[in-house]
Amino acid sequence: MSAATFSSLCFSRGCFWKDEAKNSPRVMKGSGKVKISSIRGSATLPTKSLQVEDGKTQKSEKQVRIGLLGASGYTGAEIVRLLANHPYFGITLMTADRKAGQSIGSVFPHLISQDLPTMVAVKDADFSNVDAVFCCLPHGTTQEIIKGLPKSLKIVDLSADFRLRDVSEYEEWYGQPHIAPDLQKEAVYGLTEISREDIKNARLVANPGCYPTSIQLPLVPLIQANLIQYRNIIIDAKSGVSGAGRGAKEANLYSEIAEGIYSYGVTRHRHVPEIEQGLTDVASSKVTVSFTPHLMPMIRGMQSTIYVEMAPGVTIDDLYQQLKISYEHEEFVKLLEKGVVPRTHNVRGSNYCLMNVFPDRIPGRAIIISVIDNLVKGASGQALQNLNIMLGFPENTGLLYQPLFP
Amino acid sequence: MSAATFSSLCFSRGCFWKDEAKNSPRVMKGSGKVKISSIRGSATLPTKSLQVEDGKTQKSEKQVRIGLLGASGYTGAEIVRLLANHPYFGITLMTADRKAGQSIGSVFPHLISQDLPTMVAVKDADFSNVDAVFCCLPHGTTQEIIKGLPKSLKIVDLSADFRLRDVSEYEEWYGQPHIAPDLQKEAVYGLTEISREDIKNARLVANPGCYPTSIQLPLVPLIQANLIQYRNIIIDAKSGVSGAGRGAKEANLYSEIAEGIYSYGVTRHRHVPEIEQGLTDVASSKVTVSFTPHLMPMIRGMQSTIYVEMAPGVTIDDLYQQLKISYEHEEFVKLLEKGVVPRTHNVRGSNYCLMNVFPDRIPGRAIIISVIDNLVKGASGQALQNLNIMLGFPENTGLLYQPLFP
Amino acid sequence: MSAATFSSLCFSRGCFWKDEAKNSPRVMKGSGKVKISSIRGSATLPTKSLQVEDGKTQKSEKQVRIGLLGASGYTGAEIVRLLANHPYFGITLMTADRKAGQSIGSVFPHLISQDLPTMVAVKDADFSNVDAVFCCLPHGTTQEIIKGLPKSLKIVDLSADFRLRDVSEYEEWYGQPHIAPDLQKEAVYGLTEISREDIKNARLVANPGCYPTSIQLPLVPLIQANLIQYRNIIIDAKSGVSGAGRGAKEANLYSEIAEGIYSYGVTRHRHVPEIEQGLTDVASSKVTVSFTPHLMPMIRGMQSTIYVEMAPGVTIDDLYQQLKISYEHEEFVKLLEKGVVPRTHNVRGSNYCLMNVFPDRIPGRAIIISVIDNLVKGASGQALQNLNIMLGFPENTGLLYQPLFP
Amino acid sequence: MSAATFSSLCFSRGCFWKDEAKNSPRVMKGSGKVKISSIRGSATLPTKSLQVEDGKTQKSEKQVRIGLLGASGYTGAEIVRLLANHPYFGITLMTADRKAGQSIGSVFPHLISQDLPTMVAVKDADFSNVDAVFCCLPHGTTQEIIKGLPKSLKIVDLSADFRLRDVSEYEEWYGQPHIAPDLQKEAVYGLTEISREDIKNARLVANPGCYPTSIQLPLVPLIQANLIQYRNIIIDAKSGVSGAGRGAKEANLYSEIAEGIYSYGVTRHRHVPEIEQGLTDVASSKVTVSFTPHLMPMIRGMQSTIYVEMAPGVTIDDLYQQLKISYEHEEFVKLLEKGVVPRTHNVRGSNYCLMNVFPDRIPGRAIIISVIDNLVKGASGQALQNLNIMLGFPENTGLLYQPLFP
Repeated sequence: MSAATFSSLCFSRGCFWKDEAKNSPRVMKGSGKVKISSIRGSATLPTKSLQVEDGKTQKSEKQVRIGLLGASGYTGAEIVRLLANHPYFGITLMTADRKAGQSIGSVFPHLISQDLPTMVAVKDADFSNVDAVFCCLPHGTTQEIIKGLPKSLKIVDLSADFRLRDVSEYEEWYGQPHIAPDLQKEAVYGLTEISREDIKNARLVANPGCYPTSIQLPLVPLIQANLIQYRNIIIDAKSGVSGAGRGAKEANLYSEIAEGIYSYGVTRHRHVPEIEQGLTDVASSKVTVSFTPHLMPMIRGMQSTIYVEMAPGVTIDDLYQQLKISYEHEEFVKLLEKGVVPRTHNVRGSNYCLMNVFPDRIPGRAIIISVIDNLVKGASGQALQNLNIMLGFPENTGLLYQPLFP
Repeated sequence: MSAATFSSLCFSRGCFWKDEAKNSPRVMKGSGKVKISSIRGSATLPTKSLQVEDGKTQKSEKQVRIGLLGASGYTGAEIVRLLANHPYFGITLMTADRKAGQSIGSVFPHLISQDLPTMVAVKDADFSNVDAVFCCLPHGTTQEIIKGLPKSLKIVDLSADFRLRDVSEYEEWYGQPHIAPDLQKEAVYGLTEISREDIKNARLVANPGCYPTSIQLPLVPLIQANLIQYRNIIIDAKSGVSGAGRGAKEANLYSEIAEGIYSYGVTRHRHVPEIEQGLTDVASSKVTVSFTPHLMPMIRGMQSTIYVEMAPGVTIDDLYQQLKISYEHEEFVKLLEKGVVPRTHNVRGSNYCLMNVFPDRIPGRAIIISVIDNLVKGASGQALQNLNIMLGFPENTGLLYQPLFP
Repeated sequence: MSAATFSSLCFSRGCFWKDEAKNSPRVMKGSGKVKISSIRGSATLPTKSLQVEDGKTQKSEKQVRIGLLGASGYTGAEIVRLLANHPYFGITLMTADRKAGQSIGSVFPHLISQDLPTMVAVKDADFSNVDAVFCCLPHGTTQEIIKGLPKSLKIVDLSADFRLRDVSEYEEWYGQPHIAPDLQKEAVYGLTEISREDIKNARLVANPGCYPTSIQLPLVPLIQANLIQYRNIIIDAKSGVSGAGRGAKEANLYSEIAEGIYSYGVTRHRHVPEIEQGLTDVASSKVTVSFTPHLMPMIRGMQSTIYVEMAPGVTIDDLYQQLKISYEHEEFVKLLEKGVVPRTHNVRGSNYCLMNVFPDRIPGRAIIISVIDNLVKGASGQALQNLNIMLGFPENTGLLYQPLFP
Repeated sequence: MSAATFSSLCFSRGCFWKDEAKNSPRVMKGSGKVKISSIRGSATLPTKSLQVEDGKTQKSEKQVRIGLLGASGYTGAEIVRLLANHPYFGITLMTADRKAGQSIGSVFPHLISQDLPTMVAVKDADFSNVDAVFCCLPHGTTQEIIKGLPKSLKIVDLSADFRLRDVSEYEEWYGQPHIAPDLQKEAVYGLTEISREDIKNARLVANPGCYPTSIQLPLVPLIQANLIQYRNIIIDAKSGVSGAGRGAKEANLYSEIAEGIYSYGVTRHRHVPEIEQGLTDVASSKVTVSFTPHLMPMIRGMQSTIYVEMAPGVTIDDLYQQLKISYEHEEFVKLLEKGVVPRTHNVRGSNYCLMNVFPDRIPGRAIIISVIDNLVKGASGQALQNLNIMLGFPENTGLLYQPLFP
């Protein structure tokens, strides 16, 4: 069976979860090596013989060698969780500057059963054994690190550093000049369902923020179809606290968060320019939104409640039909049946985005609700979805976790 | 000291909490009896001699005899909690149909130290020993019960039954005809800070709903002053789950509520007509609002995030100044310093409403945030505030609990 | 590829998750049909040709047809979640008396992406299309239903009905006579790691309770090895509220559970006889334990803190070594490194049991801590582990979900 | 009214809450000054004329001037909350080194309505305007600060610094030598119900830890009456996370605490020597306990589940009767009716300790459960109870808050 290839593994063996193949980019079969048609250039990845008599061999099957930069944060841990059951991606490098020398099990005891490389400082990382990278580092640092990575690596960056095409806007919102404007030009914004074709050919994908994901998925098709007005788009968003990361801050202590809610960044949250960039891209003029995020006493989950004015003559049903058309063949974006309210409970731990549209009491207005798990579709899940695409795998590979409820 | 009167007790003796006297209606001193000038008609209440050598006597000092109808629900329990330290109000009757025969300590073990009458079915209630009533019964039932009460009783009704002046609107939203339209005419809507003067003379006060309280307090003065547009008032409201009461419902189980959020009653929540009635009252034409309530994974607390368009030429500062003028002498409504975000944590267990106003990114728009504890200012606390006023006591009597945080 | 068999699918194709093969019973290859050596009698299951060009075909690959009785409760939903990614088990029958006629997505919206049969009342169930059953019904009802099932079915029963070998003990603790004592004799108690060999040959497995699982896993090997005294075994157990099920009860409302804890069933919890049965089985005389369960403000998770006296001359290290020997080759039971405290966070959503042993301040005593997810290893996960074994699949098939944290 | 005295205020005017007078030390009336018989030495406190026409004057009534050291932590905030309604204690000094220059409202926005002095660094504190001090500083620092305070001050110290009589034990558990052993000798351990008489005459009270309070209250009377064995006292304790304070630690983030539990300090928690000191004091020989604290996903609340062996011939009823006798006249310690389980929900925000005793399944053993709010009876509430006693006020003054539920 030494001639096994990615494609044959993938399509002949049932090695992935049920239904994983939806929307899959086609891969070409090779021999001894895998050649994935959708990868730009000549990304030829090594394969190994498949001996599946025991679990250990299963592991050796994972031919794409993944580097995980910033493994000690929540998005890093989530990458590890998702890859644990990914048939082709295996982690060969983990970095975490402050946890260098530690195992994943000591930093994240829930992952104790994972046999993974010891964490190293990013400066000590050896990329010779890495094919692709998830970068879960803080903004600012990220540009510098990615700038120094081998050009042969596929990269999905979960930070904000490459999301804004206009580097002057980056400087305005992040308070520091962008130091890798060339990379910025190369970067593809990775809102999977919207930019799938570009992602296929990307080397560097800027993974969207959680709020922008939950907001653009419903709004982009509606704006593109001229069904809603650009003016007075009011977004009241609610997020679980894991979005704030694992840093020790008084504001995020259990005693400060549990049993209460509040708005933050009322007039100036950093996800605003990303949202407006995405909406403006499909509009005929600059879109300015009202965006108010709220912190919820829950770990995971995000809801955007979006209040819009419909274009003249447009009805709720028009909005509903447009969203239906846009997403009916999507694996992870689900328009619910009419009248059914999306709930964050129903996406927890999964890569799904649920959405629906409702009539407002005020004539001519509509209410759109979308929910995601901020750490999955809002971060690590979408990142994996993107890397699957970049490497020519079915994009749902390793992502068919059902939500954890209750 | 047998000639002691309410007024002398109240004003000469410091028997109430610090600062309780703010906004107090004046009371006239009598002799042996209390005559409270602000009570309509001749509500003369008996007083007793004051012997304060021990705690038991303290209790006998509580001369206003309170009936609590519907004592086995959360708002009923909250009335008991608040009255525990009220110097003048003592509970002499408690009803709870399904818990008849039980003590407060068996129904609400947190109140075990309260020495209160055994609960009786409302049909068995003896009102001869009662001066005033808090009615915490479900809508529908309430009308019938209140209709049958002695006319001498002061009543604060916490249900929705007497909030809507237009009984046809009641029928529309509650699905049943109003059976006590005459009482409806008599009822005074008890949004304390807005209707204080009417409440003084009321016999029956319809205590506002929690959402309407949090929404009208900021909006009424702004609409009244013509500072905001009537159109496109968008209210995204968030409530703790105690607002749903103690009834056993699958939807409100811990496992269904914790760690998730969702919108409910998206297009048709029963508090809508109450909100619109209050806003229309001070507007020059009918106000229709967009109102979307969300259920939060927390027990208490409510936030209304309100998105408005300012009238032409009006600035954020104008809104701020108006709210400042409206509430600067209020005990329980606090406009925060500019830029400070109200948080539900900071009102938990207290009768305060905190609010503030923020500029929106969209020019000409403003964001108003107000928070209350839905069971206190949103229910039992405001009810007590109202009864204090109806009986001529300082309205903050027994209400100066500071929020419980953390 | 028409000659594909379960075994070849399973062992030659890598169709399961990494490492799934640990502890797998061997299966014999057949031709056109699957003959699983470990199944008692002649359980020959139909197989289908494998066409894996798209996801739909993947689904048809699931040759074991599962009936799920009681699909509208939390353990039923958890079975669905786990089977969603099981390569061989497909649900062909779902019953839920009160939700008959509904889809899984309307009863559990988090499972909306699962394409499953409509729920029927159990009396209307057609078992002709079913190979094996998970029974998630309440105790009492369960006996009756299982009694009426075709004898060809493999059954894992998650209720308490077949856990107690002594039917008089069942009557004592459950207040009703056992109506299927013959089935009771046939039933195998399904604490997987302890009774694996018996489970292989079982037709009816009584899946252990959550508390008994978390308690017996550490105690059985220690008692068996005579390392701890039978007397004074004190178990202070803590459980999330999902263990109480989805029934609407005032006691389990969010407002009654959040932000507080309490002991329940202090002197008489129904899991006691099951625990004592399991411990007595490996002891030389009857073991009576002190068992006090506590309800925690969390949905999932269970910890048993167990206080024991060591046998004369025995040390903590002896206990540690024994547990190490007992579980070092287990996939789902993990003895942590010395000094590391097991946390429920680290098993949430997974089938793992983490445990450790600590010295007590009181000489001669030890403290044992074990944690599980009550709905997975404490219910549906262990049930699936058992059915995998009963049908000759690697027992970790479809169970390698990593814990969801944070 | 210039001759008003504390005592007349207190006993003739009903200025305190109902029932506040229970267990009150008698105070002697003076003239123009207050002389409190129970205060050791000559603590003569100034009084002021009482003009109660408005709230401002009410405030001037508060004649005991309180210094609050360490006002920016949770126990400091809780002191402020409780004193807000204390008729005699007014805060005139607040220190918080890292928040120096800030107002209470900026550090704790829930206390925004309190008009209090700006926080200063403790080194800048002026004690000339202070009669008594609550010291809410960390251990270690505390000794040093208290050492430097004027000897005329009454002090209640909430840290661990003066709880252990044996300074060598302090050094052993806290890892540093005690630097104020003379003060240690003077300090009275302030478990109010047990040491009330000593507290009356104390200048420096070491306020007990939260765990030790919940454990000693039930155990001290039972050990003293020789009803339980000293050996094998097993304490499984559960605490809300506010006990860990407001310091920013990863371990106490919402995402790390919510929806999970764990044991900490399994073999060596610093409250052990305090617990053993208190139990040994009333035993005839050294008592060594097993003590395992668990962190709960809740802000406030503490339960100790205590497993004991009864002395030969002793019954559960004997234990119950002893606790009944010990506490039947206590305001804050309540033995529940037989069979009723104490719940932390039922003490939240209040100074109550609820307890009960239950038979164990193992003959001769009993289970004792006690609950408190760790920040009130476990910290600031008991501290206030102690200062009330030290200054001759009824000990329940300002403490009759009913629990906040739901």
